[in-house]
Formats: sequence, C-alpha cells, structure tokens
Amino acid sequence: MDPFIVMVILELAAELEATGRHVIHMEIGQPGTSAPQAARDLLTTAMEESALGYTPSLGLPALRDRIARQYGDWYGVDLDPARVIVTSGSSGGFLLAFTSLFDPGDRVGIANPGYPAYRQIFKAQALETVLLETELQDGFQPRADQIAAARLAGLLVASPANPTGTMLDKPSLAALIEAAEAEGTAFISDEIYHGLHYSERAVSALEISDDVYVINSFSKYYSMTGWRVGWMVVPPDHVERVEKLAQHMFICAPHASQVAALGAMDAREELEANRATYARNRDIVRDGLRRAGITRFSPPDGGFYVYADISHLGEDSLTLARALLDEEGVAVTPGHDFDPHRGGATWRLSYAASTEDVTEGMARIARFAARRA
Amino acid sequence: MDPFIVMVILELAAELEATGRHVIHMEIGQPGTSAPQAARDLLTTAMEESALGYTPSLGLPALRDRIARQYGDWYGVDLDPARVIVTSGSSGGFLLAFTSLFDPGDRVGIANPGYPAYRQIFKAQALETVLLETELQDGFQPRADQIAAARLAGLLVASPANPTGTMLDKPSLAALIEAAEAEGTAFISDEIYHGLHYSERAVSALEISDDVYVINSFSKYYSMTGWRVGWMVVPPDHVERVEKLAQHMFICAPHASQVAALGAMDAREELEANRATYARNRDIVRDGLRRAGITRFSPPDGGFYVYADISHLGEDSLTLARALLDEEGVAVTPGHDFDPHRGGATWRLSYAASTEDVTEGMARIARFAARRA
Repeated sequence: MDPFIVMVILELAAELEATGRHVIHMEIGQPGTSAPQAARDLLTTAMEESALGYTPSLGLPALRDRIARQYGDWYGVDLDPARVIVTSGSSGGFLLAFTSLFDPGDRVGIANPGYPAYRQIFKAQALETVLLETELQDGFQPRADQIAAARLAGLLVASPANPTGTMLDKPSLAALIEAAEAEGTAFISDEIYHGLHYSERAVSALEISDDVYVINSFSKYYSMTGWRVGWMVVPPDHVERVEKLAQHMFICAPHASQVAALGAMDAREELEANRATYARNRDIVRDGLRRAGITRFSPPDGGFYVYADISHLGEDSLTLARALLDEEGVAVTPGHDFDPHRGGATWRLSYAASTEDVTEGMARIARFAARRA
Repeated sequence: MDPFIVMVILELAAELEATGRHVIHMEIGQPGTSAPQAARDLLTTAMEESALGYTPSLGLPALRDRIARQYGDWYGVDLDPARVIVTSGSSGGFLLAFTSLFDPGDRVGIANPGYPAYRQIFKAQALETVLLETELQDGFQPRADQIAAARLAGLLVASPANPTGTMLDKPSLAALIEAAEAEGTAFISDEIYHGLHYSERAVSALEISDDVYVINSFSKYYSMTGWRVGWMVVPPDHVERVEKLAQHMFICAPHASQVAALGAMDAREELEANRATYARNRDIVRDGLRRAGITRFSPPDGGFYVYADISHLGEDSLTLARALLDEEGVAVTPGHDFDPHRGGATWRLSYAASTEDVTEGMARIARFAARRA
C-alpha cells in the first residue's frame, strides 16, 4: 500500500490545532452535516421496535424498492429492484464489483488523476492498474479513443469525479460505454456524487446500457459518510453471483444504516438545503481562485471539489500545501495522491465545509498566492 | 461461489410459514435478542450530539481502548490499544487479514467441518483452501501434527467453533500456534464466540503469542449481528499495513455501530442474562438429543450450536432436514455447507432461539427420530 500524502497535512493540521490555531479544512472529503433528521428519527423508532439482526444479503427489500424508484424520479429509468444491491458504502460496492468481474492479474483502467483508493484496492486484489492520462481540456475524463489500445478487462469511470468535480455528458459517457463493449471490457460507473450538481444533472450509465455496474452511496448527497451504506446496480444476470459474494464477504450492510438510509431518501428539503450551500461554496471557491490568479482548474460541475493547477506558485504542491497551512492555517490536499505523475502541480480544494469557513479560506489563499506571485 | 444448501431449508421454511404453520428455527446463527439497551441509548444520544462522520480507519479511540481493557479483564492479557483494529464485523476482519497476510495462490488451512464463508472468501481472493479433516474425538479441531505436511501459508482456527461449538483448551491451541510458527505459517484465531461459554471460558490466542491475528465481533455475545462491527488484534509490526488496507478497502467501520458497541461493552447484566438463556437452551438440546437416540455429537462448550451425526436415521442429512421441516415444522442446517465430504451425515442445530422454541423443537425432533428408529 502506498502512503497517503494527505496524511502529512492532516497531522500538521492536528498539531496546529493543538496549539490553539483555527485551521480551515479544505482537504476533507465529507459533508460537515449529519444524516437528515428523518433518517435519525426512523432509526430511533426502529431500534425500539426491532432486533435489527442480519438483513438479506442484498439489503432490506423496502430500501431496494425505494432506490429503484429513484432511478425513475431522477433519470427516467425503469429499474427492477431485483438488480439493486445494498452495500457497505461504496467501498463495499467496489470490493464486490471487482471480485465479481475480475481475476488476479487483470488490467483495469481508471482516469489519472483519480480517487486513490481505486488503485490501492486493485493492488490489494492483485489487479493491474492502468492509468488513463487525462487532460484539463477533456475535463480530466478518459476519451473513448484511449480504450482499445489499453487492452482492459475493466474500465472504471466517475462522474462527477474526485478530485476534479467534472462530469461526463451523455454523448461522452455513451462513447466510453460503447468503446468498452466493443472490446469486451466490463464497465463500472462510480456515481457516488450524483445529486450534487450545480447546473445540469449528472447522467447515469443506466440511461445508456443495462450491461454496466453502477456504484453509488449515501455518503455524499445524503450526508451519511460514517454510516457506511451505499448501493450497486448490476446487470440482471450478475445478481445471483454478486448475492453469493455479498453473503460470504459481508453477510449484509449494517441494518441500522439501511434503516437510516430509507429515512434519508425522503428528506428532500433538508438535502436540497445542503446542496444550495455547496452551490454557494462552489461559486466562492471558483471566483476566489480566479481572483487569486489561480485560473487553470476543472469546471466544478458536481461533487464538492476543485482541482487546480498551482505550479505557477513555483514549488511542489506538497511544499506549497505545507506552507499554506503554516502561514495561513488552511489545509488543502496536494495532488500526489490523485496523480502519481503530475500531482506535484495541483491541489484539490474541498468546499464541503461551512460557507463561512470556505469564504475565509479563499481570502487566506488569495493572500498566500499574492505573496508568491 | 458454491450455493448454500441451507438456502433450500430457508426457502421451504418461508413457504411453510406463508401457509400459516409455526416453524421452529434451529437453523439460524444469530441471537433473537437486540443490541443491549445501553448500546441503543448511547447511539440515540450520539445521533443528536454529533454528525457521526468517518471515524479513524482503525476505529474510535475510546472503543479501541475499551476493547484492549477487556483483554485484561477476561484473559489477564495486557494489550496495547494500538494493536486493536475496529472492523466492519468479523467479515471485514477476515477480508483485511487475508489481504494483509496472503497472496493469490497461497494455501490456507481450516478445519473440516468449518464455517463455510472461510472457503468462499478464500475462493474470492484466489487463495487455495486446504481442508484439515477433523474427528469427533478431537472435538472436530485440527491437530498440531497435521500442520507441517499441509505446507500452509496460513492456518485459521476457531474456538468455540462453528458448526461444532467445541473449544480448544490452552495446550491444544498452544501446540497449533507452535506448529504454525515452526513452519512460518501465519496464525489466525477466530474468537467470535468468545464470551459464550458454559463451563470453562475460551482461551485467546493472545494468551499464547503476540504473533497472531485475532478476529472477534460484537455479533454474538454482544447480540449485535446486524450492526456489522467487530475487531481484530494484529502483531505490533502489522498495524501500519492493516491501517492502510482498512483506509482503502473500508474507510472505517460504521460510526453508529461503533458507538453502540461501546455502550454494549458495559451492559454486562443484560448480556449475562442472554448467556444464561443459551446455557439453559444448550442443556435442553444436549439432553433432548440423547433422549432422541442422537448421541454422536460434539461437546457444546460454547457458542450456540451442536453438530450431531444423524446418519443412523438412514438418509442424507438434507433429505432428513427436509422431512423434519415437512413433518414437524423444525428447521435445522444439513452438514453439507460445513463439510463438503461428510456433511450428508450431520445436522447443525442452533439453540439461539427462545427457550420455549428450543424445548418444543427438541420434542418434535424426538418424535421424528422415533418414527425412523
């Protein structure tokens, strides 16, 4: 396992906070909000009424039905609940998907930059990671013309993506799915930031094909990171084998979290208020970066990250992140964890914190950049 | 993945119940009781006071401390909390342990009969299962003299075991650990039924060696199956690599479940009352089997199972289990899932149900056996 460079920043931030300094956290990939009130209320009631033992391995039937219904509401897709598998977070979904689809030594393609856990889980499962190098002008997303030459057993894409916040539009996503199908490459769509979009909604791979694995989670839009509950949709003829894997590898996703998730799905008002906060924060970060002379970044279509090129500040992104933390008390994530080749040129900024903190953070970053311009 | 034979029984039981018949469930491996009141109370409070976001990957520090303290209370072992890793149930512990210790193709030994998920997770991780054939006179536990010839990368033992309920005494466990160490074989001790013993307490591998992986869970003694929270103790020099695996593969165990687990650890009175029920149930099953002429079974030292030879009833254990369910409305688990070679001769009976159900179940089994004697 490779170390996480961000750990250096997290440790320094903790040290600074121990000395009494106010650190603004723009390195963190999780909402500061709790699970919706309706989620907590449903669980409080359930704890008194039920033993909350094992659920079926595929999840509580009511939750699988409710998730399937959302595909109609959000995407106009008529989804059979039998294809919905409740997982122990998206992490559980990835472990199940990779085990179901791949054998040791198989080549799996991901965008570079990308979510670092992908590579590490591949390594843990003895799979070969194939980094598809992406560019700012493509929104840091892989292109269909890269697929054939990569000779992949699987292709995993994320939209909105981490660390970039970019989305694939429907033609681009369809082209990738087609290219994968043409090569016999399994297609996995990481949709865990769906629901958090700021203009056009994100497109689900299920709008394009049934022959895909879709992985989602209650962590982001539903503000339930610590509950470790998510879901996966698989092709109809894969349900049985994934069910057996889930039985043995997980038994089931946490029952209490499944109950809370069911409550969260009807907390539209509270969740949309959270999204409005992210939208405001995104504008503050986007405009603040430009004012600070940091102009090369991906369009933050969704999620709660911006991935910005700060190489004009003259030093490696980790050195700069340490300096920013030391001088201004703002924590950001250096790009190394997301892009082992070019991460020295970039920072990922999260705008999942409060609007007050994000506003103050951008003022401090502007001062920092001005001193180095 | 192999099918679970018990699924045939579960489906038949559900069909019978749908017609209004009262089925007694002696096939089920989970307590009917809920998490202790103190666990639920602590979570209810925490849900109002905290966002319950991600915890550290190794778990809540207070829970790790509390678990380490229990090794002093239960076993007289002074355990550094830094070695305690909170997991997503024992399932999460197994996935982490096997990934940390083994590479694809490695040979891992387990007792036959044994918990079927072991074999299935090995298969999912491309490991080779080596079944160590065990005998009733050895309490269905492997012997130290079997280890060298098996040429194992790892040895996994369980005490109390599933499906047999037998325990390894300290000399036998020590002999197995020594035999493994002599061969450079990693040793994993599955201790998830610890706390549920009916005469002598179970011995932890940590009383014998620090160079072992110990896997445990809040599912059984703490009556928290559906919460998916457990723990693992690893050698000091393995903590860092398991932490990295846990970060990437799980992020963390469910936060709400970790809070509830902390509450459960102080609910001694409620948990000991549960244990007293199991002790009564165990006596009812043991004595009931003997009265029914079923005398070849393992000593039920701990856990909540008895593994009994029913071959004198003249048919395969699945055929007999179907007949028992059909004729008497009692569900038991045929041995095939636990022992692919000799499981046609055995049933596993769980006594985790209520005392009333267990009493009635044994009366029905006695009638069934009498008709076939």
